[in-house]
Amino acid sequence: MTSDALAASGAWMPGDPPGRRQFHVFATDRGFALDSGVALRDVTLAYETWGTLDPDAANAVLLCHAWTGDSHAAGRAGRGHPTPGWWEGMVGPGRPIDTNHWFVVCSNVLGGCQGTTGPASPHPADGRPYGSRFPVITIRDMVRAQARLADHLGVTTWRAVLGGSMGGMQVLEWAITYPDRVRSILPIATCMQSTAQQIAWGAIGRRAIALDPRWRGGDYYDAAPGDGPAEGLAIARMVAQVTFRSDNVFTDRFGRDLTDRGRHGDTFGLWQQFEVERYLEHHGTKLGRRFDANSYLVIGKAMDLHDVARGRGALARAMGRITAEAVVVGISSDMLYPSYQQRQIDELLRSEGLKSEYVEVSSPHGHDGFLIEFDQLAEPIAAFLER
Amino acid sequence: MTSDALAASGAWMPGDPPGRRQFHVFATDRGFALDSGVALRDVTLAYETWGTLDPDAANAVLLCHAWTGDSHAAGRAGRGHPTPGWWEGMVGPGRPIDTNHWFVVCSNVLGGCQGTTGPASPHPADGRPYGSRFPVITIRDMVRAQARLADHLGVTTWRAVLGGSMGGMQVLEWAITYPDRVRSILPIATCMQSTAQQIAWGAIGRRAIALDPRWRGGDYYDAAPGDGPAEGLAIARMVAQVTFRSDNVFTDRFGRDLTDRGRHGDTFGLWQQFEVERYLEHHGTKLGRRFDANSYLVIGKAMDLHDVARGRGALARAMGRITAEAVVVGISSDMLYPSYQQRQIDELLRSEGLKSEYVEVSSPHGHDGFLIEFDQLAEPIAAFLER
Repeated sequence: MTSDALAASGAWMPGDPPGRRQFHVFATDRGFALDSGVALRDVTLAYETWGTLDPDAANAVLLCHAWTGDSHAAGRAGRGHPTPGWWEGMVGPGRPIDTNHWFVVCSNVLGGCQGTTGPASPHPADGRPYGSRFPVITIRDMVRAQARLADHLGVTTWRAVLGGSMGGMQVLEWAITYPDRVRSILPIATCMQSTAQQIAWGAIGRRAIALDPRWRGGDYYDAAPGDGPAEGLAIARMVAQVTFRSDNVFTDRFGRDLTDRGRHGDTFGLWQQFEVERYLEHHGTKLGRRFDANSYLVIGKAMDLHDVARGRGALARAMGRITAEAVVVGISSDMLYPSYQQRQIDELLRSEGLKSEYVEVSSPHGHDGFLIEFDQLAEPIAAFLER
Repeated sequence: MTSDALAASGAWMPGDPPGRRQFHVFATDRGFALDSGVALRDVTLAYETWGTLDPDAANAVLLCHAWTGDSHAAGRAGRGHPTPGWWEGMVGPGRPIDTNHWFVVCSNVLGGCQGTTGPASPHPADGRPYGSRFPVITIRDMVRAQARLADHLGVTTWRAVLGGSMGGMQVLEWAITYPDRVRSILPIATCMQSTAQQIAWGAIGRRAIALDPRWRGGDYYDAAPGDGPAEGLAIARMVAQVTFRSDNVFTDRFGRDLTDRGRHGDTFGLWQQFEVERYLEHHGTKLGRRFDANSYLVIGKAMDLHDVARGRGALARAMGRITAEAVVVGISSDMLYPSYQQRQIDELLRSEGLKSEYVEVSSPHGHDGFLIEFDQLAEPIAAFLER
């Protein structure tokens, strides 16, 4: 299986330029047990680090990425990294997460497609991509895999665990699963349990991918370059992209402008695009070049299954396991993870006697505000780390 | 082309039981000119009426239906009518729109699939369904077709024109295009110009239909029963269905319940459904049995093109053509047509010196509130008609 043959997916594959990636390969003598009961063998985590770990290992900070993110939290696009760092403005020397001071770690999640074991990875039994054979994973599986990486790096306790959206789900699961390994948490634009509406959006995207005949039931890795499920993935991404933004921003940015204005007849073509459609198409198509549709499915399902209370009794009981201090961040215009969900986190933590604070980012940009509003995020995050 | 052969679509076809439908066939000596410049020949409008037109024709009320509605505003499901009336609770003897008093008319829109000329109708040139040959239509085209029906029925002036969602778009276009034929209007949960976000949702649905290989570029009417683009249409409907409801209602109704609880392994199946997914699938599949995917595309595009200002100068200038009194209704939890859009209508009408009032329905049900909150709609609508 060469990289060329994999051009039907946007997955990074061994042999591609590693960029800043490093790799942690789990011990191969036994499988990595998943919540589903499946044991995954030959697990590799791809990760990046910035800064230097202190001798007492007390300055480690973990960043957890969102759905289509990866370990490249900071740094340029370039060989091996199709996109610039998703928190480029936040992480670096002299930046709010100052890498002169902190040892920052970010790993590609289990099920991902940027170097960590996922559906495009070779199945140990036959060396061919897992495809439809890849198991369902959970946010907890992702976090337990990251804990192995922490062991490998010599990090017993994270000074802080931070992340937005699905990253925030991992933040909560870290604090609940490993209360003695997390000193503080900063979950952003996230929730304790995915809601029915969030599940609905995810499920619609999954069906769009499955409808694409080029998805081939999940086993499309042998397809010719360009013959993968790009359109299904694009539609799934378009659904998400609308929920990531806001009505107001779309109105301000696109209004009712048509593409290729001036040709009268085009206004009345069924497939004549408004500018907002071109924008969605651009983002949908772009994702297909750097992301694997099966990873999109698997990670999306992990989010739908996200429920910190699962198997732990009541929600308060699950959250009560946390010992870390928290700053919980919401975004005023977030329609996907509305700010009431972050207020609930903060309220529950305080009702459990924990030190928690809620900060609302005032932004028109919707859910994606956590990737945009660096000016508003910088101060609370820097202050949070300095405590 | 028999009805049997059309079972690849959910369109009502000649030969199917007519139910309460009546038909108005336009004069065939010349085409019906559309905004696109195309002249549509052999146009038929299917419509229903309730009550009796007074000798002075002063008691006529027009109801305008929404995207997947039809002329069956009131009445049971039964032969010829796959669904009960969409405003069953509002229209009838002694009901808020009292058919003992008013002569009520509702017609299936141009481009529809329940008896009015649309993509499933025979093309005059060859008698085969239009399919991909059906032109793009606009809300104004729908309204001008209804004006022909009004002429046919002897209705010079509507006492009131009412409708929600796309029905409300027609209400506004009626009042602007024919100011001397409309005495009062009641637009509900609608807008003057579709916004970028509304267009985005519509465009995503269109792409899902086009991705379905069984859509066949729009020419699927010869396909075997059950071999039409049902899944593409279902996905498009699922997107819409989420926007028609609300986060709170989904949480209250479905929460995180899984279907087929109890089988442990199922929780971790990629295609294991949460209850909200089963609900969406139910609605998506149901629509495919009674609606034609091409009509869904054409009517959706008409909504995206909705802009009362198009070709009329500024928005205020377009709205200033209205002479009718207005009651504008918004729904508090509407995420698709947020209530600020109805407030804008009311404010603009008043700033143009017209008599207008804004009424907000307090409802958790989102956009679909106009099909649900009869208790709150009854009083303002009855009072509005009694004026």
